[in-house]
Amino acid sequence: MTSTTDQAAPVWSVTEHLEDILATVQPLEPIELQLLDAQGCVLVDDVTVPLSLPPFDNSSMDGYAVRVADVEGASEEFPAVLEVIGDVAAGSAGDLTVGAGQAARIMTGAPLPPGAEAVVPVEWTDGGLGAGPVGGMTPHSASPEGASGEVRVHRPAAARAHVRAQGSDVQAGERALAAGTVLGPSQIALLAAIGRATVRVRPRPRVVVMSTGSELTQPGEGLAHGQIYDSNSFALTAAARDAGAIAYRVGAVADDAETLRSTIEDQLIRADLLVTTGGVSVGAYDVVKEALESVGDEDEAGAGIEFRKLAMQPGKPQGFGSIGPDHTPLLALPGNPVSSYVSFELFVRPAIRTLMGLADVHRPSVRAELRCEEPLSSPKGKRQFLRGAYDAEAGAVRPVGGSGSHLIAALAQADCLIVVPEDTTEVAPGTELEVILLG
Amino acid sequence: MTSTTDQAAPVWSVTEHLEDILATVQPLEPIELQLLDAQGCVLVDDVTVPLSLPPFDNSSMDGYAVRVADVEGASEEFPAVLEVIGDVAAGSAGDLTVGAGQAARIMTGAPLPPGAEAVVPVEWTDGGLGAGPVGGMTPHSASPEGASGEVRVHRPAAARAHVRAQGSDVQAGERALAAGTVLGPSQIALLAAIGRATVRVRPRPRVVVMSTGSELTQPGEGLAHGQIYDSNSFALTAAARDAGAIAYRVGAVADDAETLRSTIEDQLIRADLLVTTGGVSVGAYDVVKEALESVGDEDEAGAGIEFRKLAMQPGKPQGFGSIGPDHTPLLALPGNPVSSYVSFELFVRPAIRTLMGLADVHRPSVRAELRCEEPLSSPKGKRQFLRGAYDAEAGAVRPVGGSGSHLIAALAQADCLIVVPEDTTEVAPGTELEVILLG
Repeated sequence: MTSTTDQAAPVWSVTEHLEDILATVQPLEPIELQLLDAQGCVLVDDVTVPLSLPPFDNSSMDGYAVRVADVEGASEEFPAVLEVIGDVAAGSAGDLTVGAGQAARIMTGAPLPPGAEAVVPVEWTDGGLGAGPVGGMTPHSASPEGASGEVRVHRPAAARAHVRAQGSDVQAGERALAAGTVLGPSQIALLAAIGRATVRVRPRPRVVVMSTGSELTQPGEGLAHGQIYDSNSFALTAAARDAGAIAYRVGAVADDAETLRSTIEDQLIRADLLVTTGGVSVGAYDVVKEALESVGDEDEAGAGIEFRKLAMQPGKPQGFGSIGPDHTPLLALPGNPVSSYVSFELFVRPAIRTLMGLADVHRPSVRAELRCEEPLSSPKGKRQFLRGAYDAEAGAVRPVGGSGSHLIAALAQADCLIVVPEDTTEVAPGTELEVILLG
Repeated sequence: MTSTTDQAAPVWSVTEHLEDILATVQPLEPIELQLLDAQGCVLVDDVTVPLSLPPFDNSSMDGYAVRVADVEGASEEFPAVLEVIGDVAAGSAGDLTVGAGQAARIMTGAPLPPGAEAVVPVEWTDGGLGAGPVGGMTPHSASPEGASGEVRVHRPAAARAHVRAQGSDVQAGERALAAGTVLGPSQIALLAAIGRATVRVRPRPRVVVMSTGSELTQPGEGLAHGQIYDSNSFALTAAARDAGAIAYRVGAVADDAETLRSTIEDQLIRADLLVTTGGVSVGAYDVVKEALESVGDEDEAGAGIEFRKLAMQPGKPQGFGSIGPDHTPLLALPGNPVSSYVSFELFVRPAIRTLMGLADVHRPSVRAELRCEEPLSSPKGKRQFLRGAYDAEAGAVRPVGGSGSHLIAALAQADCLIVVPEDTTEVAPGTELEVILLG
């Protein structure tokens, strides 16, 4: 808690609030998931390679498996003529052995048969047709009996030419992936390649998003006087998904403490994290505070939601804590659309990414030069977050829309947040500022 | 087609092949989706604001709606004493009118009642309690009869102070979002705020990924000699999802043309794009070519898959075209894991993003300085794609693993592709090269 005061009430800094959240939220317990269900998740243990890759010497070309001595000095004019003893297809168990003067027709990926020392690509041979060089093999379906007769090889091959050695990719016992790795397509590929059907990861957190406010009407319905459309529950559900969560949207809950309390209790069963918007300020109908003081098992230690004023704009009123028998973390955000979205970016997104076990929970930020006509004013003692449009090439940022926390139309044009420090009250055009990239 | 030849067969450049693909693949027909189902999709039409936001003048604070003249010159020592005529909660229809000497207690977001000209925050008043300044309102539940009696106001308020004017965010008739916008959280927020429950977008393409090869065993099963685990179908399904698609993985199909043909025909019903791996080279068991020449309605114009050799490494053999009665696009990639992954990045990802209607279908690329011990060699006449690790701060890239197309373990450590141009056969350390960021 800082010494800053506002109306005699204590005020926390953005940094303090975030630190408190991150000190409380813990990574979810790992579970074993099917590979494709683990995409985007964080690996919990080092993964060791159980078998070398490739598991056996195999051909990197479609061609003929030969002995090196048999093709030494071969040329198109003076080809080496070899007896073809059959086909080695990819996936074959390989019951052929290549003797002196012999060749086996071999496919890419097929095991190098015993006796063979190298592969000559089919393009270096007559393909067994007795004429000049060929561009490829006769399809198996056209001559299902497989290769036989003779093949003329037009070029020599060094030992192990076009052979991928067993273990040349990875050796059994090596570490394939380190704990903490985020599983993308190529990591999933490696896990599959070493035979893993499932993998132990931290699951995606289930986030329940709930907007509150008796003024909220669902989109698509008619709007009575004094009503507005619920947008926060949509925005934050989408943002939670973007952050990596499985998000559930609960439509607007009316400003009634009992309704809100029972809705939250109902949702606890499917929530690793609860997010509410609205009802956290100083009004007579801000029932979120009231409701959240008595949700779940009050006797258990560690439960409870604390409501704070933060030295930030927008987003001053914030609630955070844990509720219910499992101490499910809950963030209570303010209800103004821009306030709730900025609060999500600053506090909820890092919480979600902490639950996922990610090492880096923050959005990237850069320094950029402010481009605008007039100096910007900023409230003293508050960290201000303005919506901006970032120009990476110019290293510049310009504000989009005003500082009003209801300017949702401008927010939709922004791709970053411009950060004005607490002690700054005016920012001249050309000043360098921190910019949080929302991309 | 370039004039470059290899074994007398024509060879296409990477650029030509990509151009042919992008000239053929068309954005999907738009559909109307629920807002949260449209996340990440491209808006088809401009969206116009049907009602101004906010829809009515409303309070930006919890406080009292007053007339300006009534609070002129007010101070804590000499407060303005006003008659409280009741509450205006958010969502209320607003049946109160504020007369001279009167105030209505008003909540954030509630409509400014007729007669009132400004809002004074509750912190600037005694909250009706008759003592000093308060930090907030008494909860409605604690005094359900609502506000009445008198309130002492300690500070004056200018006209329209703490009032958000109707239409100050957006005006009815303005363009909310332009056609072509990708719908992220804040765009979805805006659509919800203007009352849109659904939106017309191009849907996510359904991509069916199919690996082929009789040597392929599914992860988790036992591995016989000559067999390897199927990794391509996992890698490309995950990569297709990363690109924005709804991806379906079809396990490995054996090297049998009839089986492959019927599997593809079965899958056409759920595919906007088909991707196969393997069976496209010059071997006797490369049945993908054979099967794909006769899938679907052969009499229809425009159908058919063309197989090409490309001047690239890895990824030389490639197939592309369309099949079936709907001319579903199909890309037939080579079977080596690294070849298929690189081919996906170069050809399939741009195709998926074209189907989505995105303006920018390509991965970002940068120039970076090569960091390695020895010069790299690169095959003449081929564009080479090496796996690399990019260091953004240093503007440098180092190769990861070797150039072998089976080095799947190294691929899992890479975060970029290093591009070595066709005419380059050796690259010295320190050379600046194009780097495709796989982010």
